[in-house]
Amino acid sequence: MEQAISSVGKQVSEATVRVRYAETDRMGRVYQANYFIWFEVGRSALIRDFGGVSYGVLEERGLLLPATECYCHYILPCTYEDELTVRTWVAEMGRVRLRMEYEIINQASGQRVAEGFTVHAFADKQGRPLRLRDHPELYEPMARAAGLL
Amino acid sequence: MEQAISSVGKQVSEATVRVRYAETDRMGRVYQANYFIWFEVGRSALIRDFGGVSYGVLEERGLLLPATECYCHYILPCTYEDELTVRTWVAEMGRVRLRMEYEIINQASGQRVAEGFTVHAFADKQGRPLRLRDHPELYEPMARAAGLL
Amino acid sequence: MEQAISSVGKQVSEATVRVRYAETDRMGRVYQANYFIWFEVGRSALIRDFGGVSYGVLEERGLLLPATECYCHYILPCTYEDELTVRTWVAEMGRVRLRMEYEIINQASGQRVAEGFTVHAFADKQGRPLRLRDHPELYEPMARAAGLL
Amino acid sequence: MEQAISSVGKQVSEATVRVRYAETDRMGRVYQANYFIWFEVGRSALIRDFGGVSYGVLEERGLLLPATECYCHYILPCTYEDELTVRTWVAEMGRVRLRMEYEIINQASGQRVAEGFTVHAFADKQGRPLRLRDHPELYEPMARAAGLL
Repeated sequence: MEQAISSVGKQVSEATVRVRYAETDRMGRVYQANYFIWFEVGRSALIRDFGGVSYGVLEERGLLLPATECYCHYILPCTYEDELTVRTWVAEMGRVRLRMEYEIINQASGQRVAEGFTVHAFADKQGRPLRLRDHPELYEPMARAAGLL
Repeated sequence: MEQAISSVGKQVSEATVRVRYAETDRMGRVYQANYFIWFEVGRSALIRDFGGVSYGVLEERGLLLPATECYCHYILPCTYEDELTVRTWVAEMGRVRLRMEYEIINQASGQRVAEGFTVHAFADKQGRPLRLRDHPELYEPMARAAGLL
Repeated sequence: MEQAISSVGKQVSEATVRVRYAETDRMGRVYQANYFIWFEVGRSALIRDFGGVSYGVLEERGLLLPATECYCHYILPCTYEDELTVRTWVAEMGRVRLRMEYEIINQASGQRVAEGFTVHAFADKQGRPLRLRDHPELYEPMARAAGLL
Repeated sequence: MEQAISSVGKQVSEATVRVRYAETDRMGRVYQANYFIWFEVGRSALIRDFGGVSYGVLEERGLLLPATECYCHYILPCTYEDELTVRTWVAEMGRVRLRMEYEIINQASGQRVAEGFTVHAFADKQGRPLRLRDHPELYEPMARAAGLL
């Protein structure tokens, strides 16, 4: 886990989210769990940007990416109606796992408000591990994003 | 929709929820959508109380209860750590639909903080309508809750 | 509650949402409570479209719109990555309450997948009722949206 | 971040959650972000167990614990209606920060399904850092939980 979160030399995908009222909590800020939902918005965008096929379609074909680890570092608070850019990249691509990294930028201030990572396994609908290389539909967009293709 | 929400003469199931921080919003109250999640907590409790089988198991056997309508009337605000009783009953049981009603009581004050209803269809996993009578696993707990058995 | 949901003759505001993975449930569809979050996305867009000032700013100035009622009619299921248009309009504007209505359209099919309404009070930060007319910052955008100005 | 998650020698607080339908996703499992909500349920229980005062009350008095980091390792999937024990302990207590750790046990199987941590700052309502020692209402329960008192 100790590796630094950095997009240097990576293909980065960008998505915009606007903070919803439901995402705030009584501290007046965005509740911590919601950043992981935005990371997923970023991940979906990355798969669309680098693949031809959406993650939803891959999943229907039996290629799942269940999360095995999630991490977020909260740098500055966000609140209702803030417009944020979610920057997502493939940090590592192993034979049976994938590490994605994220940073979230407040569009108004240009400041980085959060950074984090998620680790995913490849599995079929029964939860059995798959080798990524055997599934070009998923391997290729990920490898393109990772700069390997 | 205009019918009054009332548990008079009904078998009522009760469940407790304690308000989570995540459920509050920047107004300092519980965000409106979360009451529907509590209604579902109440609905699950009712099926457990009056059936032998949980809704999860019924669903695995292909008996689904997708919501077709939802309504909530917010009477008094709730906030973090409030302990609430969700009271749930079957208000109406038709051949192909079911109306459940709910009220939420603040345990500390005894006051009713919300009331509402949900309407559900019976369907199989492909979304095809089912006749409730043909499925005693679901029909019987519902009919018992509705006071018909 | 029995009044029909219709945008005929109304000023309609439109917002787009793309269904997030987090919003789906194990039935493979969007979980019912999430539609109310989208209604709020639509409501925020309407206030931005017809006012000069966002709801967030109004709230900081002490003008709150707590929901007193919420209703949704689910017409067709939605799932992950569906792109939806949330259409929002002011259906009724009273002295101390406001009724907004919504419909959600699947952009790919053009079909209406849900419709609903919310009713809101006007209140200050202490929850005391306010007369809408006394607060032109909120009255005017709402009245414009309602076609009264 | 590289430190192992372990409750050995710690005072552990336990809370029960039952998985809600809303918490599942279309993979049929609990969506990843929801584990952080359960961590917060565990954290609230720990403060109640070791303090005299709830976190809600502390917050009203101006003692906030905003999260600065969050991590979860997903070991086994959970689904609807699973009953889970959230075990929470104070792993580290610094002058201006606190690290809590968590594990989640499936009550039916006895298996550990997830583990994780959160790091919190101490701050007042304006977000200014506080020294924990200066606030015995929060310091004492935390120190008791950490085995320092």
